[in-house]
Amino acid sequence: MMKISDRITGMASSPIRKLTPLADRAKSRGIKIYHLNIGQPDIRTSAKGLASLKTIDRTVLEYSPSEGFYSLRKKISAYYAEYGMDFSPEEITVTTGASEAVLFAFLTCMDPGDELITTEPTYANYLAFAEVAGVKVRTLKTSIENGFALPQVEHFEELITPRTKAILICNPNNPSGTLYDRKEMQMLADIVRKHGLYLFSDEVYREFVYDGMEYFSAGHFDGLDENVVLLDSFSKRYSECGIRVGALITRNRAITQGVLKLCQARLSPPLLGQIVAEASCDEDPSYLDNVIKEYDSRRKVLIESLTRIPGVKVSTPHGAFYAMAALPVDDAEKFCTWCLSDFQYEGESIMMAPANGFYITPGLGTNEVRMAYVLKSEDLRRAVTVLEKALEAYPGRTLR
Amino acid sequence: MMKISDRITGMASSPIRKLTPLADRAKSRGIKIYHLNIGQPDIRTSAKGLASLKTIDRTVLEYSPSEGFYSLRKKISAYYAEYGMDFSPEEITVTTGASEAVLFAFLTCMDPGDELITTEPTYANYLAFAEVAGVKVRTLKTSIENGFALPQVEHFEELITPRTKAILICNPNNPSGTLYDRKEMQMLADIVRKHGLYLFSDEVYREFVYDGMEYFSAGHFDGLDENVVLLDSFSKRYSECGIRVGALITRNRAITQGVLKLCQARLSPPLLGQIVAEASCDEDPSYLDNVIKEYDSRRKVLIESLTRIPGVKVSTPHGAFYAMAALPVDDAEKFCTWCLSDFQYEGESIMMAPANGFYITPGLGTNEVRMAYVLKSEDLRRAVTVLEKALEAYPGRTLR
Repeated sequence: MMKISDRITGMASSPIRKLTPLADRAKSRGIKIYHLNIGQPDIRTSAKGLASLKTIDRTVLEYSPSEGFYSLRKKISAYYAEYGMDFSPEEITVTTGASEAVLFAFLTCMDPGDELITTEPTYANYLAFAEVAGVKVRTLKTSIENGFALPQVEHFEELITPRTKAILICNPNNPSGTLYDRKEMQMLADIVRKHGLYLFSDEVYREFVYDGMEYFSAGHFDGLDENVVLLDSFSKRYSECGIRVGALITRNRAITQGVLKLCQARLSPPLLGQIVAEASCDEDPSYLDNVIKEYDSRRKVLIESLTRIPGVKVSTPHGAFYAMAALPVDDAEKFCTWCLSDFQYEGESIMMAPANGFYITPGLGTNEVRMAYVLKSEDLRRAVTVLEKALEAYPGRTLR
Repeated sequence: MMKISDRITGMASSPIRKLTPLADRAKSRGIKIYHLNIGQPDIRTSAKGLASLKTIDRTVLEYSPSEGFYSLRKKISAYYAEYGMDFSPEEITVTTGASEAVLFAFLTCMDPGDELITTEPTYANYLAFAEVAGVKVRTLKTSIENGFALPQVEHFEELITPRTKAILICNPNNPSGTLYDRKEMQMLADIVRKHGLYLFSDEVYREFVYDGMEYFSAGHFDGLDENVVLLDSFSKRYSECGIRVGALITRNRAITQGVLKLCQARLSPPLLGQIVAEASCDEDPSYLDNVIKEYDSRRKVLIESLTRIPGVKVSTPHGAFYAMAALPVDDAEKFCTWCLSDFQYEGESIMMAPANGFYITPGLGTNEVRMAYVLKSEDLRRAVTVLEKALEAYPGRTLR
């Protein structure tokens, strides 16, 4: 009689979770593992953010307002103004990480049985939140062959049904590192306006844009006040993933009011994280400039080194800090497993995220992995050398 | 075409939310308001918890494990051992406040359409989380006449249908302050065992027990390993509501594993809050002793003063820091509104929580309010004097 909910049973566990114990065992055998699998930056947290902890003089760590401190929402508003977007503090809701912003957007804008369109590969946790909201995710395939560009308008329109309520994008994209250009964003703007859909735009990697490319936020397009919901976070911007502070931003008042009910139910976002986030907003611009330069040079190291390996196909990412690579192997999950359980090169090995965790359609991305360039350049270079040796030794190698 | 989800539209806003702008306006007119409406303690946060913020020497505020730091889970395990309950760290999941523990328990243990039984008056946010989980809440009325004691077993059994999956209690109770005795808890244990139900027990006020009463946790009963899910929090225990750290505790492995999937989707609980919580666990026992003594004396002041007002009926609470009172008024929400908008006594007024926000069945608790004794005794005494004057002046007074 007692059983777990079907929505939980149906929720996939990330393939990375299966690899973690293998990595731990490899380490216990004295093998050094290069972690290319995680999105946890090694970059120092904003010094202003860190310093704010030392000067907290509160005697009671009490609830903050459910929608977040007004002072923080004002800072976020000012930050958006610098990006050429005009959002008042009243249009900004502070959430417990962007994760909560995604969940609250889903819960507020869609009923159980409604449909959401997104691309695959996709950020796997979206699927878990869709499961919680009872929403069906329909996906459009994007491909390493053309840098994971958005599909043409007709492919989106083929998926639209009377139950379709929203399109979800992540820009720059996790896991592909793809940055959407003006044409792609304009296409999305036209589709959501024409079909009366919400556009959920996860822009937590907004700063991390390379090669002098221009950034087009969903918030930059006119006439979409009712449609656009921006999902944002302090986690990556100031390397403070642990503070759990994000934001949901929209000019659609009904959404803000609906989200507030959910915010009130969970009482308040983290007090201490908000203090750190607010202080981080005053960080010197050179902080982010240096971080972006650092990622950019790592990106070049990673892509250049990967390109030199025979049989490896890599799509040059223009944003975020991820790259997808197709490897000359039978099955990337098997290969990643083997790297941790059966391989070492001079006492070292590598951990990568098998891409099957990012695809929904079975069979897609079987030979792909996602690599996060969150290691120092010299470590990245070495990690790719270890990868090359692993590919040479792997029994399931497909390149002859 | 674009609309907000029915689950959000159907979610009630707390009547307190309607009163807040009135209180702000009264303050702007120079009126001093005694806040009896909120569960935010004025007690100082654990000094050890506060001090831990000054000694954080991390350079990256990174993600913590999705299930929480092992070191914190060990401390929670040791805390339970002192309460005579044996839970290993593996049976403890750290959550973002008890709020998240409640939501994750609902999502993991119940499918949409399933039913949950609880008592009313109830903690209003349970209803919002039930709405998110698609769960139907069925309630048993408890009454100020007998101190909001649990109903007899046959009343529970009348509500049980094939869709009933769980019973939810809050003990000591918010909003009533009621502490369930051994007999009541044994009855619940027998019901959930007999009918194969989950027992969700929100025990965030566990420490706040008065009059030398003994505390019986749902975790104290044998043979309920598969049934019991404890919902806990650091918020009230160490007066650190803002850190957003709670816990979900169960010996049922399938639940822990299911909850872990939700934890992984939201990445991690707050890092800084966990640091404060862990340090608070080392707080000197005299801290809590003093806090409990302070609440106990406030409780006595509040109950004694209220009892002296003609026509006021009050149920003596034995736990938490709330009391329910029935007032000689036509409608408590109207009265609370009137106190803020049309009344003052010597430049002062009071804000209370109308109890209709805690009842689900329309018409119940119409003349009741919840008071939180989170003010100093002298302020409480004065607040009750102001209440007495308000009752004398209120046009909708029912006592002649």
